[in-house]
Amino acid sequence: MDFSSFLTSLGTSFVIFVLLMMVFTWLSRKPGNQVVYFPNRILRGLDPWEGERRSRSPVAWIQQAFAASEADIVAAAGVDAAVYLVFLSSVLGIFVLSGLVLLPVLLPIAVTDHANKTLAESNSNATFNNLDKLAMGNVHAKSSRLWAFFLANYWVSFVTFYVLWKSYKHVSDLRVATRSTPVVRPEDYTVLVRDIPTDPQHVSRKEQVDSYFKALHPDSFYKSMVVTDNKQANKIWVKLEGYKKKLARAEVIFAESKTTSNPEGTRPTNKTGFLGLIGKKVDTINYCNEKITELAAKSEIEQKKTIEDKQQAAALIFFSSRPAAVSASQTLHAQMVDTWTVTEAPEPRQLVWNNLNKKLYTRLIRQYGVYAIVFLTIVFYMIPIAAISAFTTLQNLRRYLPFLKVIVDQKAVKTILEAYLPQLALIIFLAFLPAFLLFLSKAEGIPSQGHVIRAASGKYFYFSVFNVFLGVTVGGTLFASLKIIAKEPKKIVNLLADSLPPNATFFVTYVALQFFVGFGLELSRLVPLIIFHLKKKYLCKTEAEVKEAWAPGDFGYATRVPGNMLIMIVVFCYSVISPIIIPFGVIYFGLGWLIARNQALNVYVPSYESYGRMWPHMHARILASLIIFQVLMLGYLGLKKFYYAPGMIPLIILSFIFAYTCNKRFYPSFSNTPLEMACKDTKEILNLDSVYAAYIHPSLRPEKPDIVNRFGNVEANVLAQSDTV
Amino acid sequence: MDFSSFLTSLGTSFVIFVLLMMVFTWLSRKPGNQVVYFPNRILRGLDPWEGERRSRSPVAWIQQAFAASEADIVAAAGVDAAVYLVFLSSVLGIFVLSGLVLLPVLLPIAVTDHANKTLAESNSNATFNNLDKLAMGNVHAKSSRLWAFFLANYWVSFVTFYVLWKSYKHVSDLRVATRSTPVVRPEDYTVLVRDIPTDPQHVSRKEQVDSYFKALHPDSFYKSMVVTDNKQANKIWVKLEGYKKKLARAEVIFAESKTTSNPEGTRPTNKTGFLGLIGKKVDTINYCNEKITELAAKSEIEQKKTIEDKQQAAALIFFSSRPAAVSASQTLHAQMVDTWTVTEAPEPRQLVWNNLNKKLYTRLIRQYGVYAIVFLTIVFYMIPIAAISAFTTLQNLRRYLPFLKVIVDQKAVKTILEAYLPQLALIIFLAFLPAFLLFLSKAEGIPSQGHVIRAASGKYFYFSVFNVFLGVTVGGTLFASLKIIAKEPKKIVNLLADSLPPNATFFVTYVALQFFVGFGLELSRLVPLIIFHLKKKYLCKTEAEVKEAWAPGDFGYATRVPGNMLIMIVVFCYSVISPIIIPFGVIYFGLGWLIARNQALNVYVPSYESYGRMWPHMHARILASLIIFQVLMLGYLGLKKFYYAPGMIPLIILSFIFAYTCNKRFYPSFSNTPLEMACKDTKEILNLDSVYAAYIHPSLRPEKPDIVNRFGNVEANVLAQSDTV
Repeated sequence: MDFSSFLTSLGTSFVIFVLLMMVFTWLSRKPGNQVVYFPNRILRGLDPWEGERRSRSPVAWIQQAFAASEADIVAAAGVDAAVYLVFLSSVLGIFVLSGLVLLPVLLPIAVTDHANKTLAESNSNATFNNLDKLAMGNVHAKSSRLWAFFLANYWVSFVTFYVLWKSYKHVSDLRVATRSTPVVRPEDYTVLVRDIPTDPQHVSRKEQVDSYFKALHPDSFYKSMVVTDNKQANKIWVKLEGYKKKLARAEVIFAESKTTSNPEGTRPTNKTGFLGLIGKKVDTINYCNEKITELAAKSEIEQKKTIEDKQQAAALIFFSSRPAAVSASQTLHAQMVDTWTVTEAPEPRQLVWNNLNKKLYTRLIRQYGVYAIVFLTIVFYMIPIAAISAFTTLQNLRRYLPFLKVIVDQKAVKTILEAYLPQLALIIFLAFLPAFLLFLSKAEGIPSQGHVIRAASGKYFYFSVFNVFLGVTVGGTLFASLKIIAKEPKKIVNLLADSLPPNATFFVTYVALQFFVGFGLELSRLVPLIIFHLKKKYLCKTEAEVKEAWAPGDFGYATRVPGNMLIMIVVFCYSVISPIIIPFGVIYFGLGWLIARNQALNVYVPSYESYGRMWPHMHARILASLIIFQVLMLGYLGLKKFYYAPGMIPLIILSFIFAYTCNKRFYPSFSNTPLEMACKDTKEILNLDSVYAAYIHPSLRPEKPDIVNRFGNVEANVLAQSDTV
Repeated sequence: MDFSSFLTSLGTSFVIFVLLMMVFTWLSRKPGNQVVYFPNRILRGLDPWEGERRSRSPVAWIQQAFAASEADIVAAAGVDAAVYLVFLSSVLGIFVLSGLVLLPVLLPIAVTDHANKTLAESNSNATFNNLDKLAMGNVHAKSSRLWAFFLANYWVSFVTFYVLWKSYKHVSDLRVATRSTPVVRPEDYTVLVRDIPTDPQHVSRKEQVDSYFKALHPDSFYKSMVVTDNKQANKIWVKLEGYKKKLARAEVIFAESKTTSNPEGTRPTNKTGFLGLIGKKVDTINYCNEKITELAAKSEIEQKKTIEDKQQAAALIFFSSRPAAVSASQTLHAQMVDTWTVTEAPEPRQLVWNNLNKKLYTRLIRQYGVYAIVFLTIVFYMIPIAAISAFTTLQNLRRYLPFLKVIVDQKAVKTILEAYLPQLALIIFLAFLPAFLLFLSKAEGIPSQGHVIRAASGKYFYFSVFNVFLGVTVGGTLFASLKIIAKEPKKIVNLLADSLPPNATFFVTYVALQFFVGFGLELSRLVPLIIFHLKKKYLCKTEAEVKEAWAPGDFGYATRVPGNMLIMIVVFCYSVISPIIIPFGVIYFGLGWLIARNQALNVYVPSYESYGRMWPHMHARILASLIIFQVLMLGYLGLKKFYYAPGMIPLIILSFIFAYTCNKRFYPSFSNTPLEMACKDTKEILNLDSVYAAYIHPSLRPEKPDIVNRFGNVEANVLAQSDTV
């Protein structure tokens, strides 16, 4: 990629970004779009614009995002969103502090040396552009200037340690502060027990569980709820809900048809057969009413049957006090560890009901099976990615698809294509993965939705690192020079080192594309806006249907976090080799932080709350990126024949020690609840029945649920739960 | 080593064994030796011979050892001894089951092939003896006979899995059964808390600890005992005890001196200066009485001062019920994990007081520091061991020390020297290590004596494996063929494979020496017997001194277990290569089991009880040996050019899965107490004051301890505790 196409890429990205910002400012002022741009505020019962619509300037949202305190974020979008913002600001902090030293020091050192020029003179094939002059590749091998690059690694590492330590402490305190609020949370009184052994002595599981826990916790045991096989009950419940919706819809249609010319109205009809296309024609309102009565009765019978006969080997145990539940969840119960496994219960809306019944060994086998599949996926996706990135260079396109020559040879087209082709291939390619990884993580047998998402995010991270980063740097080189490697396999190390500096330009463009176009789309919400308006116009009839159409969803950490992390690891790895990437990283995380704050305050509604349990994973992966960077630099300094390159080894060891220390110091209070915290009094009057009721599966609830969920938004909860079935 | 010297070695070992057995039979009948051969029985107040001294045949002890049930063992020597016997019998079981198939199948297959002969014909330097014909080395490369050896690995592995699973289950049940007995154990009601943060709010640690635990455990907290710096108090106490002993001794001497010729007696005197050699001459009885009064007063003042002013950042917390203590010990207390670390309390006699105060990070740094030292020790001991084993072959002796030629060339001397020289070097060499490793393990900051011993045993195991086993097999070869390796480093694998079969003979001799001479000495207790009689005759005056002279001590697991394990790993590794080693392994572990039973029933007195916490370590190391064996066989089969050698890889993976499964299933109930167990009622009436009193350090006890320790043997306990300071 030459310098002009690099500038073109940056320029077009920037233009798109500015356009999207203008679109956002314009569209978000229209009242009809409120529900797309401020759904979170509307659901919380707040005025979207706080009465200043007319005076709202294009940068008002920026002021608002800046002004919000962390407490506001927690109130609007929960602790998880706040922790996600801490992640973004930590990485931002690392890059700002690194850049402050690296840019003014390393750039002049690099630009005043001329290794590339010398090389270029001796080797007419090589092409170097202006950007490469600013990189470490421009420094002569064995030069004493390499000391500056060597020390830069230490600076970046220590900045990372400092910021991460601060952030971990902050998140840990935030977690404790928010969990210590005097609110009754059902999960604080509940323990999940799995692997209940079969015991012929007891008639029912329920009796067995009750007698076991009554004996071990005579003072604090309140009640138990045996997990049941809800498949049948859920089926009926889903049908019932369907008919209710249909009925509501039919009633609206009927009411609308009562015009002045037709005061009686036309009763809507439908056919009962396949997709409403065949079968008997019936009056929809009557038909639905009939069906609802029928299904409600059926549901009641099935509910009774499920609770009595379909008890499974897992249960939720309710305790009368928080400390008792916390102690119980951390105490080994049975001598044989594959029976009576106790853990803290997830939030009701996080429970993955289908996984609760899975036995310890099944879980272990599934877990390792899934790991194996992920490993194979990572390894074998490498091949197509490498193929694509090798194939989609412009030269290759011209070579393999000669009929494109006419178009491709035009200067403007060529420049744009050259700028975007490889990145587009990459972005499209990555769109297929998240659903697959979420499915795999759920298949491991994890009992909580939040944990499933963390697991999927971890897998996505490994995938990103191995395939995108290594695949593009090494993969491109591999294809370009397969013949050389076949002859002399040892040259692969040299090739890697040679390929790093040229790829820097690729990644700078990639980062810029991500933040300009990616964040522009994110902020302007064009896609949800269009979908909402289409749905509203052609599909939705009832209030509930409209509400469903604009339901904002949550942040989607499973893909969002690894996406950020890929950028982070790229910036880390090139921070010293090609420091010019740092400003781009700073803009990415700065803009990302700002937009995420806006989205947290105005748009997304969390579908669960894990009180920042995502943080240890983020922390570990920031450190992993740092270590990958250090190892790469060790290798690269070695290839630059820098005599003191092994001086990187203590730094790598230090990183591991830092990781170990953080893990020892902070992690246990994330994986378990400290007793200190559980002993703080709740001000709310404890109603254990409502704690119990919160855990009843929607399909097993009595027809008219009289217990309104504490989150107010019953419907969303019910939907979220039924998703997890 | 040729065949005749092998037979000589076996023969002499056997003769020594028979002699030692006869000595044992003869000596153990003498009433004066009772205290050496039956100290355990005497301390338990039993009759050593159960009234059948005269009729006692030489094999009576064997009958007795066989007849004893596991309950007898537990009653006599505690659960740890029973678990040690399970370890011996498990390994015995593995070798018996392996041998039953391997010997009749592999030996004929090996002996009817003639690879060695062919080799020997082509290479006149090589010498082969009759033993080597029975080994895998005698089978041709690529021969289909190798299938039998290949399948033998599977047989050995599955036998091991089966036996280990059974044993783990058995030990786990035994642990639960013995811990569930309705006896009040102080450690069941106690929790150790370390890393108490400094809090300027509280005047004293005691207040701080009390208020913290009262808040978190309002119902079950009974009392706390802050750990104090006892150095000064202990110094005074040791002095005081010394003067008490001296006084008792002087009184006996005085009483003895009252003969008929001298009815007044001579009052013993001593000098007060250095070692009683210089200074003023004083009347010992008066002097001691004075000193005792003086020190007792001093001790009381120091005790008060210690308890008030020398409180440290660790404490023992006493709970009013077992389940409460168990829950508390497993529950995370503080949000910051480097404060208020809670663990189960060790037995009072196991407490390593000096380590309790060490902070989390100090402990971690010390731990890794110790690991580094151990690693260096293992690596650098390799050099002397390799040197010794290379140097002490007879040929080398003749070459380097030519003046020995005259002696060495005599046939009888030569045979004996050839048989014993390498083994002796090895045995002597290993005698230096245990104390050093115990010291290192204690320096890690481990709070319990039992844990220290397990840690030392682990280190010793690694040392044995790397230095003795690999050092002798590879080391010998390394020295013998240093030149070849310097030229072609890749040949090292071939050399290892070549060196394995010849070394088999060395190890067979080593095993035989260990069991004939080692177990002979163990059973006959010649060394303790001689020391006891010498002490009794020349040193001991008082009853207490005599008792101390025959105090049997405990099993000494820190060196005993790794010793057994070295033999185990040797037998494992050669079991398929040279199956003739299996009978020797069977005799070793059979005889070891028998003698250990005798010693458990009659001799050793446990100095602590960990309820079989040693087992997971034994289990893990048996499995580690199995895996080393499998990897070695994978390499050896490969070198024999057996086409299906990679078929060993699934077996190795299977071993890891087995290890992982066992760890998941059984280990947690060893590292933590299951609540199930803690909830069993104790029949004994709970006296929490005596629980508290059991943990008072001897140097802080009031002068006349009125609480007799539950183990009856107060003196032994006090001694054991003062050791751990």
